[in-house]
Amino acid sequence: MKNVFRPPLYRSALVIVALFFSFQHNALNAAVNREPSLPHPEHQHKADAKLEVLKAKFGRSPNVIILLVDDMGWGDPGVYGGGEAIGAPTPNIDRLAHEGLRLTSAYAQPTCSPTRAAINTGRLPVRTGVTRPPLYGEKGGLDGEITAAQILQKKGYRTAMVGKWHLGEAEVQQPQNYGYDEYFGILGSSSFYSEWQDERINPEMVLDEERTDFFRSAPFNKNLVSAGGDKKLKNVKPLTMANIASLDQDFASYSEKFIRRSAESRQPFYLMHAFAKVHFDNYPAAAFKGKSPAMYPYKDAVVEVDDIVGRLTKVLEETGQAENTLIFFTSDNGPQDDTWPDSGHTPFRGSKGSTWEGGVRVPAIAWWPGAIQAGRVSDGLFDLLDLFNTTLALAGAKNNMPTDRYLDGIDQTSFLLADEGQSNRETVYFWMQDQYMALRWREYKVHKNILVTGDNQYSAMGTLQNSTVQKAAYIGLVYNLYIDPQEKQSLSLRKGWLLPFVQRERSRHFKTFEQYPMKKTKMSQW
Amino acid sequence: MKNVFRPPLYRSALVIVALFFSFQHNALNAAVNREPSLPHPEHQHKADAKLEVLKAKFGRSPNVIILLVDDMGWGDPGVYGGGEAIGAPTPNIDRLAHEGLRLTSAYAQPTCSPTRAAINTGRLPVRTGVTRPPLYGEKGGLDGEITAAQILQKKGYRTAMVGKWHLGEAEVQQPQNYGYDEYFGILGSSSFYSEWQDERINPEMVLDEERTDFFRSAPFNKNLVSAGGDKKLKNVKPLTMANIASLDQDFASYSEKFIRRSAESRQPFYLMHAFAKVHFDNYPAAAFKGKSPAMYPYKDAVVEVDDIVGRLTKVLEETGQAENTLIFFTSDNGPQDDTWPDSGHTPFRGSKGSTWEGGVRVPAIAWWPGAIQAGRVSDGLFDLLDLFNTTLALAGAKNNMPTDRYLDGIDQTSFLLADEGQSNRETVYFWMQDQYMALRWREYKVHKNILVTGDNQYSAMGTLQNSTVQKAAYIGLVYNLYIDPQEKQSLSLRKGWLLPFVQRERSRHFKTFEQYPMKKTKMSQW
Repeated sequence: MKNVFRPPLYRSALVIVALFFSFQHNALNAAVNREPSLPHPEHQHKADAKLEVLKAKFGRSPNVIILLVDDMGWGDPGVYGGGEAIGAPTPNIDRLAHEGLRLTSAYAQPTCSPTRAAINTGRLPVRTGVTRPPLYGEKGGLDGEITAAQILQKKGYRTAMVGKWHLGEAEVQQPQNYGYDEYFGILGSSSFYSEWQDERINPEMVLDEERTDFFRSAPFNKNLVSAGGDKKLKNVKPLTMANIASLDQDFASYSEKFIRRSAESRQPFYLMHAFAKVHFDNYPAAAFKGKSPAMYPYKDAVVEVDDIVGRLTKVLEETGQAENTLIFFTSDNGPQDDTWPDSGHTPFRGSKGSTWEGGVRVPAIAWWPGAIQAGRVSDGLFDLLDLFNTTLALAGAKNNMPTDRYLDGIDQTSFLLADEGQSNRETVYFWMQDQYMALRWREYKVHKNILVTGDNQYSAMGTLQNSTVQKAAYIGLVYNLYIDPQEKQSLSLRKGWLLPFVQRERSRHFKTFEQYPMKKTKMSQW
Repeated sequence: MKNVFRPPLYRSALVIVALFFSFQHNALNAAVNREPSLPHPEHQHKADAKLEVLKAKFGRSPNVIILLVDDMGWGDPGVYGGGEAIGAPTPNIDRLAHEGLRLTSAYAQPTCSPTRAAINTGRLPVRTGVTRPPLYGEKGGLDGEITAAQILQKKGYRTAMVGKWHLGEAEVQQPQNYGYDEYFGILGSSSFYSEWQDERINPEMVLDEERTDFFRSAPFNKNLVSAGGDKKLKNVKPLTMANIASLDQDFASYSEKFIRRSAESRQPFYLMHAFAKVHFDNYPAAAFKGKSPAMYPYKDAVVEVDDIVGRLTKVLEETGQAENTLIFFTSDNGPQDDTWPDSGHTPFRGSKGSTWEGGVRVPAIAWWPGAIQAGRVSDGLFDLLDLFNTTLALAGAKNNMPTDRYLDGIDQTSFLLADEGQSNRETVYFWMQDQYMALRWREYKVHKNILVTGDNQYSAMGTLQNSTVQKAAYIGLVYNLYIDPQEKQSLSLRKGWLLPFVQRERSRHFKTFEQYPMKKTKMSQW
C-alpha cells in the first residue's frame, strides 16, 4: 500500500526508467536482417485474398509500374495543394489519387541516385554505397547489390528500365546488367548534357571552345541509349539541346510500346519509368512550350510529365491490364530550390539535398483500380525503399529476397491493398551521404544533425548553396509534424516522454550496422 | 520606312510609353461606383440558363449558405494539402470540393471583423470603417452600411445569422438590426470569453480576483445570445468554459433546425453560419477531445468543424434542398500563428494580420450539386466580398444594390456556375487597417508595404508579435505567385513589363476614393 502514497513525480520517473530498459531489451530482440514491421494480420489477410482473386482471373502475377519523376516537390501536384494554385494543373496525376491511395508521408533519400539505389535494392544508401549521385561518368553503381528486377526476372517477369538511370555508366553497372531485359534512356542526369550546351545558363562555358571540348570528350555517354537481349548498349541519338527537350516524349513512346507488347505476352511485367524532367534545366517538348498557365519552363515540364502519366495510364486501360497493375507515382527527392525558378514547390522546410521535410518528403500515389480503394488518403509512413519488398511480395517472390544482407524495406502490401490498410512502418531513418541526420517516428521528427544555409535563414532560396551541417545540442531538435509541419519550433525538452521511444528506434537501427557493416562508398565525399 | 530601322530598344520604349498612357486613359473611364468586371458573356449566359431551369423546378430563388470558419488556414483542409498530412482529416470539407468548385486564390481581409463586414456589404474595410476587430465591447459595427441580408429580406428571403458576429455589440449594431430575421450566436470572438477564465493560459489573470472582476463586469455580453421577430436580444446561457467548448455544437443544432424549418416554408433562405472555432484558444466539444490523429486541441477543433460541415450538408440533402442551394465554405483570414500550437496551417508566407499570402489567402469551396460541376478547381481570383454581389445576383436582386456608394465586390455567378467558368476579377487589393499594402494582379503580387517580424525572419512563429510595417523601396516588391507562392524572392526590376498594368489597376483603385471618400473609422488605430 506504500506505493499508492508515493509522490506522483517519483512514480512517473520509475515508470519511465522501467519502460526505457524494456525498450532497450526489445531493440536487441529485433536484430535480424529485416527491418521490423508493424504487423496487421487482418489487413494482410484481406490483401492476400484480393491478390488470389486477381491471380485466378488474370492467370499471372500483377504488373508493377513505378513512375519516378526527377526532383518534383511534394507540393507540385494538384492533390497536394499545388496544381492550379501554382500555375501547372496535373489532372492525370490527380486522377490517380482520386481513384487510388494518396500517401502524405512518403519519403525518398535527399538526393537522386541514393533514392534510385534504394528503390532497386530495398536498402539504405549507407548499405549500397550509393551515398550521392555520380557526376559525369564518375564511378558509381550498384556493385554487388541485388535488385528487385533481378529477382523478378527469375520469377518470369518481363522487366524494363526506361528513362534516367544514374546508377553508374560502366558496362557492368548498366541496367541491362542489373535485371532489366530492356533499357531505353539516359545513363546520367539531364543537366549533364545541357549545362555545357545552354548559352543562357553558362555563357562562359558554351562560348569558350576549350571548356566545351573538355565536356564533349569527357568519358561519359552523351546519347539517348538502349540495350536489349544482347546486353550491348547502343547509342540511339546524341543529346543535342533539341533532343534533350524531347527526351521524355521518347521515353513515353517506348513505355507505351512496352506496355502494349507486354499485354500480348503471357508474362507479368515490371516497368521502371524514370522521367528526365523536372530536373533543372527544363526544356519542355515543343508541344508543351507555354502550355502551363504559368508559362515558365518548369511549369510546362510539370504539365508535360502529367500528360505522359495520362498517356501511360490510358495504354494500360486500353490493353485491359489496369486491374492487374499497380502504378506507383512518386519523385526521387524534394525540389531543387537552388535553381529557382526552374524548380518545384514544397510547403515544407528545406529542399533537395537536405533531410528537412522539404528534401525528403515526396508525392506518392498508388493506383490499382479494383485492388486499391478509390479516394484513400493516408499519413502512414512509407519509405520508397519499401517498394522493393512490396513489389517482390506482389510477385510472390518474398522468399527470393537476399538473406545475406540487411534489408531496410518493409512489405507494405497490406497497407496498400486492404481498404482500411495502415502502414507497417513506424520509423523512417534519414542519412545525408555518410552521416546520420534524423529519424521520423510516428508524427515526430527528431534531428541529430541539420543542414543550415549560410545566413541561417532556412527558408531562403538555395538549400545547398552556402550551407553547412550543424549538430544538435543535447537531445536533438524535436518537431511534431502534425502541429508543426514546417519544422519551425523544436519542442525538445517539452517532449521528454518521447525519448525512450526514439532511443529504442535509434539504437535498434545502429545495432544493424554491427552485424551488417556499412559498405565503404567508392565515391569521394563531396 | 524610317521606323523599321529604329533600334529595337528605342522602339520597345515607345510602345511601353504608349501603352502606359492608354492604360491611364482606361483607368479614367472605369470610374463608376462598381468594381470593373472581366466580362464572360458566354459563361454568364450558361449560368443564367441553369438558374432559370432551377427557378422553374423549385419555384423560388436559390438558397445560400455561407460557412465561415474562424482563423482556418489555407493549408488546413485535406484538399488543400492538409487534412491527413497534418493530423486532422477533413472528409466532409473535402467532399464539398470533390463535388464542387475549389478555389485556390480566394482572399479574405487580414483580420476577422473586416472580412465579416466585407462579406456583408461587398465593400472594403476602408469604406465600411471596420478596419479592425473591436475588442471587449469597443464600438465597432456597420453604421450606415447596407448588408446583403437586408436586401435579401426585401426580396422575400428568410435570413439567419448563426454563430460569431463580431461586428458591434450595441443594440443598433446587432445582426437582427442588419437584415437577419434570426440571430443565434455570440457577439464577440470566442477568446474574449475564455482568456480571463482559462488558468492554463493566463494564470496571473485568473488567479487575481481584481483582474477577473474587471472583465466579469466589463460592458460586453458574455452569453450565448439570440434574437428573433421582436428584435430583442436574449441571453441563452452564460459562456462558462464548458459552454464555450460546446458553442459550435449549439450553433450547428440551430442551423440544422433553421434549414429544416426553411424547407417547410415557401421562401428561399440565406444562412450565415459563422463558426466560433478554430479561433484560439480551442476547446473541442467533449465528443471530439482527442479524436483527431494529432490529438491537439486545434486539430480536434478542425475535426469538429468538419463534422458540422457534414451535418449541415446532410440536412440540406435530407430536406431535398441541396440542388437549390449554394454552400460556400471559407475562412475569415489566415491562421493566427502567434498562438501556436493552437493555430492552423498555411504553406504561404506570413499569417493572420498580415497581407502576405498566409494572412489573406483562404480555403474557399463552392458546392451546389447539379449547378456547379463536380471536381472543378480554379485559380481564378475571388475576393470574399464578391459574395455580396454574387448572392444578390443569385437572388435576382442585382438591381437592388446600393448606388450611392462604391461596391468593391464583383458578381461571380458566371465563374461559379458555368462549367468552364473563369473569374470575373483580375485584381485584388490588400489593406491593413487604414494602410494600402499590396495588390494581386493575375498571378502577380505587388507590395507597396509589408509586415515584417522583429527579427526579419518572416517564417518564424508570430506574425503579429514584435512586427513592424516597412515601405518597399522604389517600385515595390514583386512576386510571381505561380513560381514563388511563398513570396521569397522579389523580381522587382526584372518584371518591368508588369508596371504599366499594375499602375493602371492601382490608379483606378485610388481614383474611386476621390469620388467616394473613405469612411473615417470610429475605432482608434491599435
